[in-house]
Amino acid sequence: MEKPFQNKFVLEVLERYKVIWSIEHAMALLSWDSETYMPEDGVEERSVAFSQLDLLKQKFLTEENFMKLVDRANEEGDLNEYEKGVLRVLNREIRVYRLLPPRLVEELAKITQEAKIVWRNARINNNFQVFQPFLEKIFSLSRECADYLGYKEHPYDALLDLYEEGLTSKDVSQIFDSIKNRLKIILDKIQSEKVFSGKHSLEELEYDKKVMEKVNFWVAEKLGYDKKRFRIDVSAHPFTIHMGIKDARITTRYEGKDFKASLFSTIHEYGHALYGLQHNEAFIFTPLANGPSLGLHESQSRFWENVIGRSRAFCAAIYPFLKENLNVLENYSIEDLYRYFNIVRPTLIRVDADEVTYNFHILVRYNLEKSLIKGEVKVNELPTLWNNMVEETLGIRPKTDSEGVLQDIHWSLGSIGYFPTYTIGTILSAQVRHNILQDIPDFYEKISRLEFGEVKEWLRHKIHYWGAMYPPKELIKRMLGEDINPEYFIKYLEEKYF
Amino acid sequence: MEKPFQNKFVLEVLERYKVIWSIEHAMALLSWDSETYMPEDGVEERSVAFSQLDLLKQKFLTEENFMKLVDRANEEGDLNEYEKGVLRVLNREIRVYRLLPPRLVEELAKITQEAKIVWRNARINNNFQVFQPFLEKIFSLSRECADYLGYKEHPYDALLDLYEEGLTSKDVSQIFDSIKNRLKIILDKIQSEKVFSGKHSLEELEYDKKVMEKVNFWVAEKLGYDKKRFRIDVSAHPFTIHMGIKDARITTRYEGKDFKASLFSTIHEYGHALYGLQHNEAFIFTPLANGPSLGLHESQSRFWENVIGRSRAFCAAIYPFLKENLNVLENYSIEDLYRYFNIVRPTLIRVDADEVTYNFHILVRYNLEKSLIKGEVKVNELPTLWNNMVEETLGIRPKTDSEGVLQDIHWSLGSIGYFPTYTIGTILSAQVRHNILQDIPDFYEKISRLEFGEVKEWLRHKIHYWGAMYPPKELIKRMLGEDINPEYFIKYLEEKYF
Repeated sequence: MEKPFQNKFVLEVLERYKVIWSIEHAMALLSWDSETYMPEDGVEERSVAFSQLDLLKQKFLTEENFMKLVDRANEEGDLNEYEKGVLRVLNREIRVYRLLPPRLVEELAKITQEAKIVWRNARINNNFQVFQPFLEKIFSLSRECADYLGYKEHPYDALLDLYEEGLTSKDVSQIFDSIKNRLKIILDKIQSEKVFSGKHSLEELEYDKKVMEKVNFWVAEKLGYDKKRFRIDVSAHPFTIHMGIKDARITTRYEGKDFKASLFSTIHEYGHALYGLQHNEAFIFTPLANGPSLGLHESQSRFWENVIGRSRAFCAAIYPFLKENLNVLENYSIEDLYRYFNIVRPTLIRVDADEVTYNFHILVRYNLEKSLIKGEVKVNELPTLWNNMVEETLGIRPKTDSEGVLQDIHWSLGSIGYFPTYTIGTILSAQVRHNILQDIPDFYEKISRLEFGEVKEWLRHKIHYWGAMYPPKELIKRMLGEDINPEYFIKYLEEKYF
Repeated sequence: MEKPFQNKFVLEVLERYKVIWSIEHAMALLSWDSETYMPEDGVEERSVAFSQLDLLKQKFLTEENFMKLVDRANEEGDLNEYEKGVLRVLNREIRVYRLLPPRLVEELAKITQEAKIVWRNARINNNFQVFQPFLEKIFSLSRECADYLGYKEHPYDALLDLYEEGLTSKDVSQIFDSIKNRLKIILDKIQSEKVFSGKHSLEELEYDKKVMEKVNFWVAEKLGYDKKRFRIDVSAHPFTIHMGIKDARITTRYEGKDFKASLFSTIHEYGHALYGLQHNEAFIFTPLANGPSLGLHESQSRFWENVIGRSRAFCAAIYPFLKENLNVLENYSIEDLYRYFNIVRPTLIRVDADEVTYNFHILVRYNLEKSLIKGEVKVNELPTLWNNMVEETLGIRPKTDSEGVLQDIHWSLGSIGYFPTYTIGTILSAQVRHNILQDIPDFYEKISRLEFGEVKEWLRHKIHYWGAMYPPKELIKRMLGEDINPEYFIKYLEEKYF
């Protein structure tokens, strides 16, 4: 293999990037610790440290000399793909700070820091009104951002691009247009056939947390948990953090009942972790040691969670161990377990949604965000609009704003344009499955033997290895042979449920 | 109370100091994580991140504008004690970088990074020769440091001052001169009386780690473990880390036998943690949120470990719980437990030493360091000199260098001048005890009821609250009414053992 980085300007950029990488490394650990082990009262000092480091990172990224060096490297004619990748990622990061006035960045940082706390209380007390002024400010600042960042057709595109390079609202609408009605048909059919519909009695059974922990570690080990580079801890909201290409950590949750929530959190986050652990090792300390977009990252977590984790083959393979350890399974067969894993039922809370209804939740948020950013809808109309749209798409209506418009943290964080990446990830996961089945025809037999070596190699070779080197659309086309294609997702569901 | 910081230059200094504080906060967490939870393969990325942040801290501390601002504040005539404290601590930190050429700082950083690994292997393989060239370099660079830093009488004084402000080799020699012979008499008497001498059968008994963990948490809770600000984790070498004034973390070890090692590690580190948790809350984010010296910090850990933890009152108070939980205690009485906690026996390894012989270990290192820095002794003579001196002071002779000159990590880290602070701490702990007994005559009765509230308040009021505001010698004089006085330590031992 050619030596990835050779150009002297790029090498100098990377040398100077090390301090930025190090600050990010520290920030990652601060975040991880905040959610896992930090004593409660540590929060005040932690917040100050975190925002100081965040400012510092920004300072180094936008330092005159550093930007000049990057610009100088940009002028080089003869760069290889690795070097181009480094510059593309850095240019994108710098661009944001170049285009946004510092005043705007500060205002957004300030309002979101407050809004997060206000949102938490608003949700607990089912009080949208206290959150409303914060949300208004966040959407108006985000619109400002969109205008500074620029866009061709829709201001929302400027925000989408921050999470999914090159993605436009036209793309997203096209995707939803092509799946919406077909998903509805699938949902209706499932509900009329009554095999996977309704409630499952396992949802209510209480498990022993220690035993569930044992199950999660056993499953992770079967998937290929490498203790030397990987940890599993506990947090209220499961997440993955990449400390580097040799240290990835996931968390899971133990709520005490409905054990699949804990199990699938573990498998989902494992998919994210694996992505980061299979990058080209030459990307160490560089901006390429990352996924190219949130959607691609989500495609990997969804692939492990849904395509593998909720498959009949996997279900049957883990059944004996689960049966032996989880006494909630005493009276349940493999087929019961499979049905439990794949029950489909319109619910109000996105994070608990099944594979079929999940994208309806995203659709609601997508349409609302787009209209809000465009100014076609006002924040005070949100609660009613939300409820109407949920009723229209899912057939059920939230009784409170807490189980409606207030349920997600994202808007309080200023993450507008983030939600569609969940759908991108879901669709890509099925597209990856289609491609793997071409190359590994005995994919499901391998799963049934809990043999993941070849699958992991395939993912590494096709996706993980390349880190953030290519823009997401390019990586998808190069590796999966075509653009993102929702067809595979629909087919996958049809095949699964009928 | 007057508002601690008012002077506008000092306030500006503190505002700019926040980023340095934040980097230190992050470095503390990186260190803590490295010893507790980091997956093994994370070490390469961790080292780079840590040294980058270390350089960054140094850069901000020695930034022209920051130093000018500190100098400007130094010129203010009308500063209060808090403000003077801030500047004193900062001046001391900056001074080191002002006086030492960057080349020297880099060389030391480089050699110690390598030496740590070489030392580890040298100790495992009992091979002093591979470590010798590194140690020679470290001592010669340290001597250079001493020359750049300046001293009045002995080059070693420049190094001592780095760990214990204002401490000179004259002070240390005086202390050792006044305790050495009397400690020898105490040791001889203990050995002839045969009550606390010899081996104790409990040293060999194996305990259940889970149960021992329960015991440690119970003891910590009795001492006043506040979950909101405090954690206990596990590491090979116990330590305390202060994330801030509201988040202190200790670690302990579980070796599987000789349970007092685990118990007293916990109590010792608790003493350090409590110090940091009882600072004046106004010191948050400032250089005053720290102990004034290593010796004073150690006085607190030793106070809790020895004065409280190894007292008859404490022993009797925790006996019922220990007896109920630790089955190794099945056939042992309170008196057996007390003897086990306080057995005195010359041993070769410092960290396992009892209260009487401990200071002999420090004396050997102190004399050797002083001679090495002065150039009176060469590194290649060390193994033999070490063994001779240990035999002379303790009456036993190491059979290998691993249990002799290679036992401690400190020299490989370049920490020359550090060891005497252990003796300072030990002596101060007895001096604190003397003072507490004046103010709280029923001190031991309180211990026997496991009531520590008043004792903690006393420590807070006299010592912890002041953070790094006063130089150690001044704090001691102000709070304990006289200079450091080894008399109390000798009296304490005599009272205890005879």
